[in-house]
Amino acid sequence: MTHAPQRLQAFRQELDRLSLEAAVVSDPRHVYYLTGYRPLPLRPAYLVVETGGEARLVAPQGAQAPGLALAPYLGYSIHHLFPALPSSLEALSRARPAGSGPVGLELDAVGRAAAEAALGGRPAADIGPVLRQLRLRKWPDELALICRCAQLTDAGYQAAARALAEGGDEFEIYLATKTAVEAAAGEPVEFDGDFVSGERSLLRGGPPTRRRPQPGDTFILDLFPTYRGYWADTCRTLVLGLPTPGQQALAERVLEALAAGRDAIRPGLPAQELYQVVRQALGRQGDASSFDHHAGHAVGLWPHESPMIVPADATTLAEGMVITLEPGLYLPETGGVRFEDTYLVTAQGAQPLSRFPLRLAP
Amino acid sequence: MTHAPQRLQAFRQELDRLSLEAAVVSDPRHVYYLTGYRPLPLRPAYLVVETGGEARLVAPQGAQAPGLALAPYLGYSIHHLFPALPSSLEALSRARPAGSGPVGLELDAVGRAAAEAALGGRPAADIGPVLRQLRLRKWPDELALICRCAQLTDAGYQAAARALAEGGDEFEIYLATKTAVEAAAGEPVEFDGDFVSGERSLLRGGPPTRRRPQPGDTFILDLFPTYRGYWADTCRTLVLGLPTPGQQALAERVLEALAAGRDAIRPGLPAQELYQVVRQALGRQGDASSFDHHAGHAVGLWPHESPMIVPADATTLAEGMVITLEPGLYLPETGGVRFEDTYLVTAQGAQPLSRFPLRLAP
Repeated sequence: MTHAPQRLQAFRQELDRLSLEAAVVSDPRHVYYLTGYRPLPLRPAYLVVETGGEARLVAPQGAQAPGLALAPYLGYSIHHLFPALPSSLEALSRARPAGSGPVGLELDAVGRAAAEAALGGRPAADIGPVLRQLRLRKWPDELALICRCAQLTDAGYQAAARALAEGGDEFEIYLATKTAVEAAAGEPVEFDGDFVSGERSLLRGGPPTRRRPQPGDTFILDLFPTYRGYWADTCRTLVLGLPTPGQQALAERVLEALAAGRDAIRPGLPAQELYQVVRQALGRQGDASSFDHHAGHAVGLWPHESPMIVPADATTLAEGMVITLEPGLYLPETGGVRFEDTYLVTAQGAQPLSRFPLRLAP
Repeated sequence: MTHAPQRLQAFRQELDRLSLEAAVVSDPRHVYYLTGYRPLPLRPAYLVVETGGEARLVAPQGAQAPGLALAPYLGYSIHHLFPALPSSLEALSRARPAGSGPVGLELDAVGRAAAEAALGGRPAADIGPVLRQLRLRKWPDELALICRCAQLTDAGYQAAARALAEGGDEFEIYLATKTAVEAAAGEPVEFDGDFVSGERSLLRGGPPTRRRPQPGDTFILDLFPTYRGYWADTCRTLVLGLPTPGQQALAERVLEALAAGRDAIRPGLPAQELYQVVRQALGRQGDASSFDHHAGHAVGLWPHESPMIVPADATTLAEGMVITLEPGLYLPETGGVRFEDTYLVTAQGAQPLSRFPLRLAP
């Protein structure tokens, strides 16, 4: 069940409001968002919308998008030197809509000068902000995928905790985690994450190495898989054996900040105020260089979406947004500690989407 | 040990030959190729070469490239709404080299109109063809990575054959294969592949499903991992239980075509002639719609590089190229069968880079 037709309808209304005659959508994630058709790697697809009329999908032969006219192209031939990969310019020319007025394009993807040249001199308007605005609040089909993706990280941490207890190194624990995430999904999942233990935890993140976590090390595991194009993002910090009192105190401080942020989440709260709630709950240490990253971010078709939980973002939270919070503190004497959850913003506050326990000792 | 400095030297000679005063390299794979520095996702890097003078790397703070001047930029700040992601235009402006003559750019990546606008009206020349030409023959550091990557697929097939014998479904076999590839590497590896069994083998390729291969099904496993940015690509077809005489005959025909192609590989042979050798060895069936894809392709920093083993490619083979051959036949009555190896082109002929047996029954 896809809500792509409703999203396309909302997009058309925005085009109309902006007095745009047409738009060409080229980012594969936006094509997926508005059509339900997810372009394959190396096989670009474009959505052409004439504001008062037809919408058509320019896509390789065989593509399907319910309710949309298809303009198929030859995606493969042994008589091409390379798979047919129309450049932005070629695609824009092929997808050129009727009319002579301004055409909406994602100008961060194609660039104004190139776009206007490809449109034969028609003015280009940037539809990037409109799409980012539409994407702020998730539709039920999107929520279902993000929710599933967050649950996959629960399976990942269970496997990670087991592999850690069995004496695995960072890479072996990564492998166990990733395999558990895909096995839980029952289908291929794109997987990335931070796996940094001991002194490496002070790096905040990074890929696993063959370093073997030692008793008393903190081990930051930040998992950000993508399930059917949708991201979730959670983080746990585990300790092999007993945490030291200093680590416990640090973790409590970080978890207090996470709880303070979670409790503050409500429709109408500016993202920048949520940042300050988290940061202030981290106390004196949160003022220093030991908390130097964002306090969270929205997730969806991009790993980081708007709103970002940073001092500069005045976006107000709204029902249906999905955001993460990820306070962390990184002290040479104890190691780094970070916890993160993904939350649905509801009228009643934050609804966490993952369940693995928030504590150092699993 | 990287040969990036030698590659940069060869690139400078090409710029000089083309009378270009400068070039800006923006594709992350080309930046890696010429500097040894591999840009991180979401953190673009650019190489600016002034033909008679300095070469500098525009990259996030902390980047390192031996022998190159660094022009670091702030790759992350909580005071940005999103991670600093300079658009092509911004990056080109920032990286603008001295002088007033033509500047070399990868115009398939940036587009001529956008490039010239960003360069303040200086003419842009396309350096894409020069880079593709340089990349045809691999340097020893590249060969070592491709060779390692091909060996990883051997570990993948061993695990796949075991999982198939144990009754796994396509997805379970994919998971066992992928895990074995990464475990053999001892570090994260990007992994993709075709996992199509039974009637699905007639699709030529595609991701795994929960379909369980049945005795007598052919099962195409085409593995194309990326190790430290370098691809290898091999394919095996396995049968659970005893292959039928029809399947055996089909596999023998495909393997004869692979052997004929392999034996024909020598410096000086045009890629299009190699295509014909493979196709003719497939016999009557190779004329029909049952062999409708390329006969192979080069691999390197891209999964498909030049030369492509297709009728349209007149490139002649040369020592140091790395190409695959992948004849296949797909018949409804037997299922699809494809075998592929990756070969180094040497003065003595083809040197295969993978070792897993080429037969239906492992």
